[in-house]
Amino acid sequence: MNVPADHLDHRVRGGWTPAGAAAAHLPAHASRWLSARTGLTPTRTPVAPDSAMRVAESELPAEVRAVLNAIVGAEHVLVERVDRLARAGGLSYVDLMRRRGAGELPVPDAVVLPADAVEVERVVALCAEHNVGIVPFGGGTSVVGGVAALRGDRGAVIALDLNRLHRLLSVDPVSRLATFEAGVVAPEAERLLAARGFTLGHFPQSYERATLGGFAATRSSGQASAGYGRFEDMVESLRVATPRGDWRVGVAPASAAGPDLRQLVLGSEGAFGVITEVTVRVRPIPAWTRYEGFIVDGFAQGAEIVRALAQSGTLGAVTRLSDPQETEVALALSGGWKMAALRAYLRVRGIAEPALLIVGWEAGSRRDLRARRRESLRHLGGTVRLGTAAGETWRHGRFAGPRQRDALLDAGMCVETLETAAYWSRLGELRDTVTSALRDSLTTAERRPVVACHISHSYETGASLYFTTLVPRAADDPIGQWQQAKEAACAAIAGLGTITHHHAIGVDHAPYLAAEIGELGVGVLRAVRANLDPNGVLNPGKLT
Amino acid sequence: MNVPADHLDHRVRGGWTPAGAAAAHLPAHASRWLSARTGLTPTRTPVAPDSAMRVAESELPAEVRAVLNAIVGAEHVLVERVDRLARAGGLSYVDLMRRRGAGELPVPDAVVLPADAVEVERVVALCAEHNVGIVPFGGGTSVVGGVAALRGDRGAVIALDLNRLHRLLSVDPVSRLATFEAGVVAPEAERLLAARGFTLGHFPQSYERATLGGFAATRSSGQASAGYGRFEDMVESLRVATPRGDWRVGVAPASAAGPDLRQLVLGSEGAFGVITEVTVRVRPIPAWTRYEGFIVDGFAQGAEIVRALAQSGTLGAVTRLSDPQETEVALALSGGWKMAALRAYLRVRGIAEPALLIVGWEAGSRRDLRARRRESLRHLGGTVRLGTAAGETWRHGRFAGPRQRDALLDAGMCVETLETAAYWSRLGELRDTVTSALRDSLTTAERRPVVACHISHSYETGASLYFTTLVPRAADDPIGQWQQAKEAACAAIAGLGTITHHHAIGVDHAPYLAAEIGELGVGVLRAVRANLDPNGVLNPGKLT
Repeated sequence: MNVPADHLDHRVRGGWTPAGAAAAHLPAHASRWLSARTGLTPTRTPVAPDSAMRVAESELPAEVRAVLNAIVGAEHVLVERVDRLARAGGLSYVDLMRRRGAGELPVPDAVVLPADAVEVERVVALCAEHNVGIVPFGGGTSVVGGVAALRGDRGAVIALDLNRLHRLLSVDPVSRLATFEAGVVAPEAERLLAARGFTLGHFPQSYERATLGGFAATRSSGQASAGYGRFEDMVESLRVATPRGDWRVGVAPASAAGPDLRQLVLGSEGAFGVITEVTVRVRPIPAWTRYEGFIVDGFAQGAEIVRALAQSGTLGAVTRLSDPQETEVALALSGGWKMAALRAYLRVRGIAEPALLIVGWEAGSRRDLRARRRESLRHLGGTVRLGTAAGETWRHGRFAGPRQRDALLDAGMCVETLETAAYWSRLGELRDTVTSALRDSLTTAERRPVVACHISHSYETGASLYFTTLVPRAADDPIGQWQQAKEAACAAIAGLGTITHHHAIGVDHAPYLAAEIGELGVGVLRAVRANLDPNGVLNPGKLT
Repeated sequence: MNVPADHLDHRVRGGWTPAGAAAAHLPAHASRWLSARTGLTPTRTPVAPDSAMRVAESELPAEVRAVLNAIVGAEHVLVERVDRLARAGGLSYVDLMRRRGAGELPVPDAVVLPADAVEVERVVALCAEHNVGIVPFGGGTSVVGGVAALRGDRGAVIALDLNRLHRLLSVDPVSRLATFEAGVVAPEAERLLAARGFTLGHFPQSYERATLGGFAATRSSGQASAGYGRFEDMVESLRVATPRGDWRVGVAPASAAGPDLRQLVLGSEGAFGVITEVTVRVRPIPAWTRYEGFIVDGFAQGAEIVRALAQSGTLGAVTRLSDPQETEVALALSGGWKMAALRAYLRVRGIAEPALLIVGWEAGSRRDLRARRRESLRHLGGTVRLGTAAGETWRHGRFAGPRQRDALLDAGMCVETLETAAYWSRLGELRDTVTSALRDSLTTAERRPVVACHISHSYETGASLYFTTLVPRAADDPIGQWQQAKEAACAAIAGLGTITHHHAIGVDHAPYLAAEIGELGVGVLRAVRANLDPNGVLNPGKLT
C-alpha cells in the first residue's frame, strides 16, 4: 500500500529526517562544544530498525474490518506492520526514544484512510458502534502524546489517517476565506493559496509535516503569530465528524449567538470529533519582507523591548527573543570565525549577556514595510543591530530544529522542549523558576544541562516562553530522566502561567489540566465529550 | 430600601431616561417628518404608572428568604413591588411596550443583592438547593429578553442584582490588566481606570447603564470595536459562581491547554453560572482623537471602502457606515438649515444616495494619529469630506439613541433594532434581504416603515449589519406587529449570517439557535448547563 508510505516514511526512521534526505549531521565543533559544556561522551545511538520493534498482532475484529473495507476501500485499511508503526505515536523525545529501544510504543491495530468528510463520518459511526478507539492522525507531529495509539478499555484502536483529505475546497477572495480539508499539510496549503495570491501565514516549527486539522485540534501557534495571529484566530468555521453526526460551527466573523463553539472545537484534540474541514482567513502574500537581528543585553532588557513593541502595536510579524543561554547555544552550534568575531565585538560594546532578538517585517508595499520597520525601531534603541544577514539566517534555518534534534539524539543527548505563557509581570519569574527546575532536576556530577529559552509569541498582556533542554542522556533511564525534569518544570509553571501555550494537552499535560482550568473545567470538557461521544471511542486517554 | 433604587429608577419609568433627567423630546420638525414619511398620527402614549402594573405576590418560600437574609443581610433581600418591577425584564421594544400596557411583564419574586463573589456563590448554592430560579441582573439593558424573570417549572425566581459588586479589585499596569467585580457599570469602570491612565475602550450603546459582567455574558461589542476589539477579545479571565462551586478560567494571554473555556463562559448569559469577576486587558487613554464624517454614494460603495480599510488594517478605532436610509433619518431628525444646505451640496456633487461614514482615530501621540489617519485616507478617495464637525456631532450624540427611543415610543412609533454579521461576499445580499423582509412585514395601507441599516463592526472577513426600524404602531397588536417582522428578518438571516452579532440569544433568538450552531451545538450547550447546574435554576428559559 503506497499512498501513505511516502508522506510518513520518516516515521519509520524514528525521527524528522525524511528517507530521501541526508540525515542531519552534528558538526565536529558542535560535538566538541557539547562535550565541554554538558559533559557529553558522544555515542552512536541510531534508531532501531523496524524489524526490532515489538508490534502485536492487530486485534481489529474481522467484522469491523470488513465494514471499514466497504466504506473506504480495502486498499485504504492497512494492517501491515510498517504502516501501523508509521502512525505509532508522535515526535516527542519520549516517542523518539521508544524508537531507539527505550520503553514500549503503542501501535494501532489498523490504519484507516478515508477519502473525504463523509467517509470519516461513517468510519467514526462504525467505530462508536463497535467500541473501537479512534486516534485522528494528521502529520503525526504531536510532542505531547496527542496521537499515541492508546485504547484504554476498548478492544482495538485505529489510526484515522486524514492524509487523503488533501483538497482546497473553496476560496472566497472577497471575504478572504479558504476552506480546506483537514488533512492538507501546511506547505501544500501555502502552495494552493499562493496560486490565488494568498497566504495563511501559519509557520510553526512543525510546518513541513503538520496538517491544518492538527493545527485546529491543538490550538497551534506559528512563528509569525504576531503578524498573522494564532491558528485559532484564523479559523472562521469548522466541520467535525462526531459519533452523533456531522457538526458545523461558525457562520460569521463574529457572533453573540451563545458561547463561541469554534473555540470549544479548537483545542479539543480529537476528543469531541474528528475535524474534517477548516475554513480559514487568508491574506495577500506580502510582497516585501525584511528580517533583522539585534543583540540586547540580557533577557530582562529584551523582554522589556518586546513588551514595548507588543503594547504599542509595533511587533514585527516575527518577533523572537532568545535568552543568553539560547543565544550561546546558537552561536556555539553555528561555530566558525564569524561567531568568534561577533563575540569579541559584543564584548567591546559592553554587552555582558548577549541575547538575540529577531524581528521580521512583512508588508504589501515597500512603503508600508519601511513604515512598520520605522515604528518598531523607535523601541529598539540601545540594541546592537546585526542587520539582515542574522535575520535571514534565522529565517532560512527556522524549520531545521527537528532535524538537528535527530542528530543530537543519535549522539547521545536528551533534547526536549516545553513551553508556557504568562502575563508580562510574571514572565521573568516564570523563566527563572522553570529554568532552575529543569537545571536542578537534570544536573548530576557528570551531566551539566543547558536550559535555553525564547519568547516567540507576544501579546499586549504577556508572552510565551519556549524552553529547550540539552543534557547527556542517562543511559539507564533516558525516559525517566526527562519525565522527572518535565514534572519539576510543570510544578514550577503552576500558578504563574499556562501548562502549554501551543503544544496542547495530549497525554503528557493531562495531569496538570485540572490545576489550570479547575475540576469544574475538566468536568465541563468531560460532559461535552460524553454528549458527543457517549461510548468514549474518540482519542482515548487524551485531553481529559 | 435605597441602595439599588437610584441606579434603576429609570426602569420604573419604563425606559432609558433617568428620573432626574429631562425626558427626551421629539422636536416638531421630526414629528412632522415622521408623519409625512411613515404615516404616523402622533399619539401620547406614556409609560403606565407603577401602580397600574400587575405584580403578583412574591412566591419566594419563607425559609429561602430567611437564609437569603442571613447570607446577604435582610436589607439586601427586596420584595417590595417597586424594587421587583425595577428588575422585571430588559429594554427591548417588547419589554418597553409591556410597561405601556401591552402584554404581561414577568416580575421576579424577590431581588437579592449580594455584596461580593462569595455571597453570590452562597446565594446560587441556596437557590440550586431549593429549586429557585436565578436571573443575573446587571444594568438590565438586554434587548433580547435576557433578563426576563421567567421561572419555567420552578416555584419562584429571583433577580440576582450584581450592583453591589462594584469594585475595581486590582490593576497590573505592566501587563495592562484590570480585575473588576462584575457589577461595575461601564462609565464607572472607565472612571476607575482613568485614575490610573487607562481605558477599556468598550463603548456599546448601552454604555451608560450596562455592566462588565453583562458585557461578558452577552459577548458585547462596542462602537470602537475596530480599535479595541469586541468585549470577548478584552477578557483575560473570569470568575463564575456555579451551583457546583466557584470556577475560574483564564491564566495566560493565550493557551493550548484544551479548548478556550473563557469563550464558553463568554456568551453563556448566566446559564452556566453567575459571572462575579472579570479581568480585562486595558490600554493607555489615547491622548489624541479625531472623528470625521464622510459621505459616500450608496451602501455598496461605502461597504467596499470599509472592507478595504478592514483588510488593509487601517480602520479607525470607530468606523461606522450608515446606509442611505439611516443617513436620511439622521438628517431628517436633526433638521435645520444646515442639513438642507448639505443636501443641496451633495446634489451638486452628484451624490445620488448619500451615505454617512464616520471614522474616528485614536492614538497616543499627534504623530501617530496623523499617521493612522493618513493610512485610512488612502482608501477614502472619491468621498465627500464633511470634516470633524460631523464626526464630533456623532460622537457626542452616540449614547442618545435609547433616550430618543423613549420619545418615539411616547409619540406612537414602533421602534426596534436587530443586528447580524456576515462575510463580505454576502453582506450586500444580507442587507437587501433583511431590509425587504422588515419592510414587507410592516407595510400596510396606512403605515410606511423606515428600515435603516449601518455597519458598525468590521473584520477582515466580514462585518456586522445593524438595522433600525421605525413604523407607526399597530394600536390593536403593537407587540405582534414587531414579532412578525422580527420573525421575517430572522428567516432572511438564516444561511447568510449570524442571528446576532452582539445582542446575545436571550429569549428572542432561542428559536433560531439550532439553525446556526446545529442540534449538536445546542446539545453541547445543554450538556454543559446540566453539568454545572443539574437542577436547572440558572436563568431559566434563556440561551437554550
